[in-house]
Amino acid sequence: MAAIKKPVDDAGSPPAPRFEGAERHLIQPWPYAGAIGNEARTPIETGDGIYITDADGRRLIDGPAGMWCVNLGHRREELARVMADQAMELSYNTPWYTMSDPSAELARRLAAHAPGDLEHVFFTTGGSSAVETALRFMQFINNVRGRPDKKLILSRGGAYHGSTYLSASLNGRPRDRDWMDGADDLVVKLSCPDPFRRPAGMTIEAFTDFLVDEFRATVERVGAERIGAFVAEPVQASGGVIVPPPGYLPRIRNLCRDNDILYVSDEVVTAFGRLGEVFASGDVFGIEPDMITFAKGVTSGYFPLGGVMISARLTEELRRSNHPQAMFGHGYTFSSHPIGCAVALKNLDLLEGGVLEHARTVAPYFQEQLKTLEDLALVGEVRGAGLMACVECVADRESKNPLALDNAVGKRIDAHCHELGLLVRPLINMCVMSPPLIITRDQIDDMVAILREGISRTMDDLRREGLWQG
Amino acid sequence: MAAIKKPVDDAGSPPAPRFEGAERHLIQPWPYAGAIGNEARTPIETGDGIYITDADGRRLIDGPAGMWCVNLGHRREELARVMADQAMELSYNTPWYTMSDPSAELARRLAAHAPGDLEHVFFTTGGSSAVETALRFMQFINNVRGRPDKKLILSRGGAYHGSTYLSASLNGRPRDRDWMDGADDLVVKLSCPDPFRRPAGMTIEAFTDFLVDEFRATVERVGAERIGAFVAEPVQASGGVIVPPPGYLPRIRNLCRDNDILYVSDEVVTAFGRLGEVFASGDVFGIEPDMITFAKGVTSGYFPLGGVMISARLTEELRRSNHPQAMFGHGYTFSSHPIGCAVALKNLDLLEGGVLEHARTVAPYFQEQLKTLEDLALVGEVRGAGLMACVECVADRESKNPLALDNAVGKRIDAHCHELGLLVRPLINMCVMSPPLIITRDQIDDMVAILREGISRTMDDLRREGLWQG
Repeated sequence: MAAIKKPVDDAGSPPAPRFEGAERHLIQPWPYAGAIGNEARTPIETGDGIYITDADGRRLIDGPAGMWCVNLGHRREELARVMADQAMELSYNTPWYTMSDPSAELARRLAAHAPGDLEHVFFTTGGSSAVETALRFMQFINNVRGRPDKKLILSRGGAYHGSTYLSASLNGRPRDRDWMDGADDLVVKLSCPDPFRRPAGMTIEAFTDFLVDEFRATVERVGAERIGAFVAEPVQASGGVIVPPPGYLPRIRNLCRDNDILYVSDEVVTAFGRLGEVFASGDVFGIEPDMITFAKGVTSGYFPLGGVMISARLTEELRRSNHPQAMFGHGYTFSSHPIGCAVALKNLDLLEGGVLEHARTVAPYFQEQLKTLEDLALVGEVRGAGLMACVECVADRESKNPLALDNAVGKRIDAHCHELGLLVRPLINMCVMSPPLIITRDQIDDMVAILREGISRTMDDLRREGLWQG
Repeated sequence: MAAIKKPVDDAGSPPAPRFEGAERHLIQPWPYAGAIGNEARTPIETGDGIYITDADGRRLIDGPAGMWCVNLGHRREELARVMADQAMELSYNTPWYTMSDPSAELARRLAAHAPGDLEHVFFTTGGSSAVETALRFMQFINNVRGRPDKKLILSRGGAYHGSTYLSASLNGRPRDRDWMDGADDLVVKLSCPDPFRRPAGMTIEAFTDFLVDEFRATVERVGAERIGAFVAEPVQASGGVIVPPPGYLPRIRNLCRDNDILYVSDEVVTAFGRLGEVFASGDVFGIEPDMITFAKGVTSGYFPLGGVMISARLTEELRRSNHPQAMFGHGYTFSSHPIGCAVALKNLDLLEGGVLEHARTVAPYFQEQLKTLEDLALVGEVRGAGLMACVECVADRESKNPLALDNAVGKRIDAHCHELGLLVRPLINMCVMSPPLIITRDQIDDMVAILREGISRTMDDLRREGLWQG
């Protein structure tokens, strides 16, 4: 397979039209009002394994694996070939009236991996549309059940669940919502289960009890008869890789069952090997949700695909209801896309064929090596699970305050790391690491060494500018 | 490129596991409650040109081009190859911090095709996410402008705009919403601009005046200061290929401008050649919207991609506002996907390289030949534009009532046509035709002949069953 274009590699050539006009014509996610229509982001030319190469020819470790998604790494010939092969076999079929074999096979294989009785899958085009599907299914089933008032959704601080109007309403990171509208009347917010930021002096056990008590009290205050679903990432990803305290998820799961609140486990980030298993809810956290949403890693980012695993208990209830002709009026043109499903099948073959095991083997080393960064004075905590981790910077370890004078410390670290050969995902005062699962121990050493140097240079800068005295 | 799997073609072979378990595991769009988890749809094996082949080996003309999307037809080697080539070059890059060359080039080329000053594009994963983006952008810009109450959305009967909570709220086909929740407080509905179902005795001109007057009166009643956007398909597609009366769209466009209501032209179906042009709003209907949403045909359905073209007037206003740091907190993991944009570029090359011209040339013949079906007593009207058309059946031409005793007449026609070699998109009492744009005159003849026979057989069935006396 020949590359369709080659980067300009000859210093004497005239300027190529690559990326021309991008700052004017291409609006990228999460822009500032002042930059819309006048902003260019780092141009990337190629990818290979855990690396991407920018337009200056600088090779970078892809620290965030794209957007937590390039699980098998870049330039996987097996995935490239299956896309072309399936496109020549059947590139599209309408899911309204027909089905394709890749979608049937993928549904069957995902059902075998999912915990409990999550035997059904509804395919979407990504995480946002998966969360929309889960929530609209909850609304639908409660309409069919004759409980139209049981629709409120519980979500948590630090959560990230998507970028459509309804899914974004669940988000719990404040600045995502400052200038954006949401379906606020449908959502009830709970505390972020962040052990690092628990009240000073409180034990982890007491913090867990606090979270569980808050959940119970909220259900009592609002009324279980008004609450349709609880939506939660097992590990909050964009919120800063928040690993909840032990026991928290099973206890909340039980409270949901007791109150007939559907538990939606949002595994858009944690599934497909990020925590070493196909799905983490059961195999890592020991819970059986009512629905699991997934996306990203299901195709290693090669193709926009997402979906919702749905419990057989729920579909049986629908089939036996008094309204068998009630229509779940929901679905996307690109639902069950045959090429996306074929890519996901090959992706699953490769995960099962060794990559999951590799991820489980290398994860402890990944976490240990990153943890060594805690000896840097700017680092408040390094935390994580599997192959996702967060380096959180604080101005002062006692108060745990983020750097008050400079909340773009993540961007500063990113700039240094870019020079040194690592793409970081900066989140205000945090750097998130979630590399391709194929990363080796040597590559982890490189990544951690660059991070150490990037953070050290940032510390020097902050001191020199008088912004920090650590 | 070898096919990844071969259909079972040997009568003596043991049953293959193809499609196994699909009825249990795969939930497809728009299911009935009684069928969820217990339903299999027609299995499709392969595609080639305007044809798809089902698991019984029956070759079918793909009447709806998948879901109005397979514009260049099935098995286009150029599209298959570019997917694989781009996957080997750069399969994914995070649009949050980086950009790819295909996304930059596609943005530039789409900006050149779009009418007026629609110079910017925000890429999404399909039509629903494109409409969400347009609406959330409207909400955002009115927040930045300090007009937080100017957010209501005008939509119309017969409309279809998506399947997320907010986009679905705009839909105007009643049964889509019977059991589904929506953001009803945000939407104001107007009449469907359907000339066929205009009040008896009213001229087309008077009907147009009625629609325009209704729009003006609605703005006066609700208050322009509360209305953020008007969203409209230039030709309503899923509503039954409703071609609005002449002059209607420009007059509504002017009313939007007069009242500072953003005009969002939803071209998910009509763009990329369906009406013979890349975008239809300007080139076919002579209007310059504030935003255009697109999806489907942008990749001929080979890859989930959509987007919104946005007016430079709006982005200039944002850049010059008093809140340059206001963040448009919106975007998708798969926004600006490099493979999707590469496929769209190749798709655009092929459209510009002859397919658009072919579509314009063949469209009059397509419409004329379908129109001949009006001599069948069951057919109330055949209408359309470009390469989209609808055959609407009625029990009685005088009353124009759909078949009251049997509202699944579309399904009956579809069943006969399937036997005869044509996949129909049945919509209650309507059959929609929107074949791949590469369809030839001979293939149009085949399609119309099959439709004629399928409708004739349906008429015989209905008479025999005593359901119809036409």
